[in-house]
Amino acid sequence: MDKTLKEEEKEEEQVVNPWEVSAKEGGKIDYEKLIDKFGCQRLDQTLIDRVQRLTSLPPHVFLRRGVFFAHRDFSEILDAYERGDKFYLYTGRGPSSEALHLGHLVPFMFTKYLQDAFKVPLVIQLTDDEKCMWKNLSVEESQRLARENAKDIIACGFDITKTFIFSDFDYVGGAFYKNMVRVSKCVTYNKLNLTGAMQVVGIFGFSGEDHIGKISFPPVQVWLFAALVSHQINCMWGKASALVLLTGCISLPISSGLAPGIAVPSFPSSFPHLFPSKDDLRCLIPCAIDQGETGKMSASDPNSAIYVTDSAKDIKNKVNKYAFSGGQDSIENHRKYGANLEVDIPVKYLSFFLEDDAELEHVRKEYGAGRMLTGEVKKRLIEVLTEIVERHRRARTAVTDAMVDAFMAVRPLPNMFN
Amino acid sequence: MDKTLKEEEKEEEQVVNPWEVSAKEGGKIDYEKLIDKFGCQRLDQTLIDRVQRLTSLPPHVFLRRGVFFAHRDFSEILDAYERGDKFYLYTGRGPSSEALHLGHLVPFMFTKYLQDAFKVPLVIQLTDDEKCMWKNLSVEESQRLARENAKDIIACGFDITKTFIFSDFDYVGGAFYKNMVRVSKCVTYNKLNLTGAMQVVGIFGFSGEDHIGKISFPPVQVWLFAALVSHQINCMWGKASALVLLTGCISLPISSGLAPGIAVPSFPSSFPHLFPSKDDLRCLIPCAIDQGETGKMSASDPNSAIYVTDSAKDIKNKVNKYAFSGGQDSIENHRKYGANLEVDIPVKYLSFFLEDDAELEHVRKEYGAGRMLTGEVKKRLIEVLTEIVERHRRARTAVTDAMVDAFMAVRPLPNMFN
Repeated sequence: MDKTLKEEEKEEEQVVNPWEVSAKEGGKIDYEKLIDKFGCQRLDQTLIDRVQRLTSLPPHVFLRRGVFFAHRDFSEILDAYERGDKFYLYTGRGPSSEALHLGHLVPFMFTKYLQDAFKVPLVIQLTDDEKCMWKNLSVEESQRLARENAKDIIACGFDITKTFIFSDFDYVGGAFYKNMVRVSKCVTYNKLNLTGAMQVVGIFGFSGEDHIGKISFPPVQVWLFAALVSHQINCMWGKASALVLLTGCISLPISSGLAPGIAVPSFPSSFPHLFPSKDDLRCLIPCAIDQGETGKMSASDPNSAIYVTDSAKDIKNKVNKYAFSGGQDSIENHRKYGANLEVDIPVKYLSFFLEDDAELEHVRKEYGAGRMLTGEVKKRLIEVLTEIVERHRRARTAVTDAMVDAFMAVRPLPNMFN
Repeated sequence: MDKTLKEEEKEEEQVVNPWEVSAKEGGKIDYEKLIDKFGCQRLDQTLIDRVQRLTSLPPHVFLRRGVFFAHRDFSEILDAYERGDKFYLYTGRGPSSEALHLGHLVPFMFTKYLQDAFKVPLVIQLTDDEKCMWKNLSVEESQRLARENAKDIIACGFDITKTFIFSDFDYVGGAFYKNMVRVSKCVTYNKLNLTGAMQVVGIFGFSGEDHIGKISFPPVQVWLFAALVSHQINCMWGKASALVLLTGCISLPISSGLAPGIAVPSFPSSFPHLFPSKDDLRCLIPCAIDQGETGKMSASDPNSAIYVTDSAKDIKNKVNKYAFSGGQDSIENHRKYGANLEVDIPVKYLSFFLEDDAELEHVRKEYGAGRMLTGEVKKRLIEVLTEIVERHRRARTAVTDAMVDAFMAVRPLPNMFN
């Protein structure tokens, strides 16, 4: 390659790195190119059918609709699963704010489905250390936010007999800390297989010689990078394969952080209370690409996101006020030309959160043909979002401090594979 | 200041930073200038007399002979001590090799004296994490070396009722890890009082904006830097004063490393089992400037250092073969001009390790006047070193694994101030 990936990217005016995600002005992120650059494959229909067959459950709406759209070595984990080898799931969150919006919940909703469908254990990392460092929060405030966020995560319905939630401030030490040093060292000594992780390193503007001390501390980073690095190191150590699914949740801002130890939970030896003498257990990491897409109801306008603390009235106001419509400027024109579904935010939100495939198809067809008006689509979206948010609020209210303690207790999970 | 400290230093051809210590060709390090640059004061006779008065013990030979020659705020700790306020001691070692040489023992010998004289607790950090990272050692090998080095340290005679030895791999976590993040953050946000620590930062070639992730990871660093940073942060937090003594042990190579958490043990809250609700306890840090002085019996020639594992025969050979003599090239000239004591290595070693002031003065006078020959001085040095090494070997043989476990147990020390 004559040009660096960074240079190539610049020419294309498409930038995805830990600090920004942007496309050519007015353009869209080319996810096909991203899949290539990140050394991933598209998560195609064959793979989705296979998941359905193996789990005897309908694939999650996020799989059916391409929200989780790419992967590395997911097939390998399915091969092993078919032979009777289990795996574990790892996801996490950087607890920088009190209230989560729906975009924050997407990876957790999907992870819950994976846990239920495959009947596997799950570790959830709360990187309060990283948020303390970078968001000018005190240690105590970061830990408080971690516990508040844990309540929202628990409210997603995870199985306490299969789930360990931990905060870095509480859990870093011992076997986990040793793996932190081992991982840093792998990157330091530049022994990584260059195919995948180093492509990412290239994209991020680091050279292969740069030290993880430099790599691991910029203000904003993605779990994706950690997941790819984990995958490479796991491959190199010849013990386990860390797997990656990417979500391309257009217009749902999913931001997250990379703490120094964010790659470490993909190694089963980091959890001696969970996986003693299971050093070759595989790990599956659902993770997201940060989004900066233009359009309403995006991260850049804080008022436009739907928070899990929003009232029915808030949701109604936000959807009506902020959700950019692809409908035409007059009813006459709308009946004549139909809505532009590509830019329509209500339809995008419905494609995430309306589970009924037939109804979604109906909306797309009728709205696209101009027979359905923006107001009707928004009304349906308000119903769907209100129901999700109300359900979440009820579930969260039921989460006690004792339950948080129970999920976060360092304990064995004897039935985690049943 | 128009020139940066680095530029100024370059012009002077005197360089002291974490990677090198060098003076103008053939010249000597100007410690007076160093004292200034590091924001320190000379440890003068008035202060030494005060130590003697307060401890009712003769000052240690390293104090009397100017081996520990500078300090920051040592007077303040003595003021507080006089009012009845105790403090604790902190020192450490990067366990990169199996066998220690005498230079490695110097800070521990001095720290033992301080512990005995002031009757105060002591924490000793073994930075096995940092050595694992940078010396291409496995986690297991670094931990093994830490335990081996702990035996040599224990053999120096520390009081088990007042001493906690810890390895980073064992101990990092909890309150200690929280302080690691707090310290990193202080440096990140560049809130340090600029007087002292930032001068050091300047000398080391970092800008004030550089992040601790960058600062804390170069291959070789000194405890000095950590001590100065600790001192500044302690002052800023308004709770405790970390104090610094510098050793200018000419021709004794004292190398050490700076782990990410090396500043953290100077905060009493890092040891909740030792200092619960004693957040304002002062900390005194004996530490060293790395040495690269030209001349025999230096770090640059591994054969020339006296190891604690050397036999009497080894010591005799090394001193006779490597210890550069300031004596003249013929007995005739020697009798006429006398020895050049400034460059004579045997005399330098005697000034470290021969406790009898009168005898040392006698040697200097007779040898300097040419009445004593190099052979006689070397013979006396061989006796002195052999006795120290033999005493150390006997003490080390008596250190069992159970004793190491006991020193390294995370436990309260109820009688540490008695």
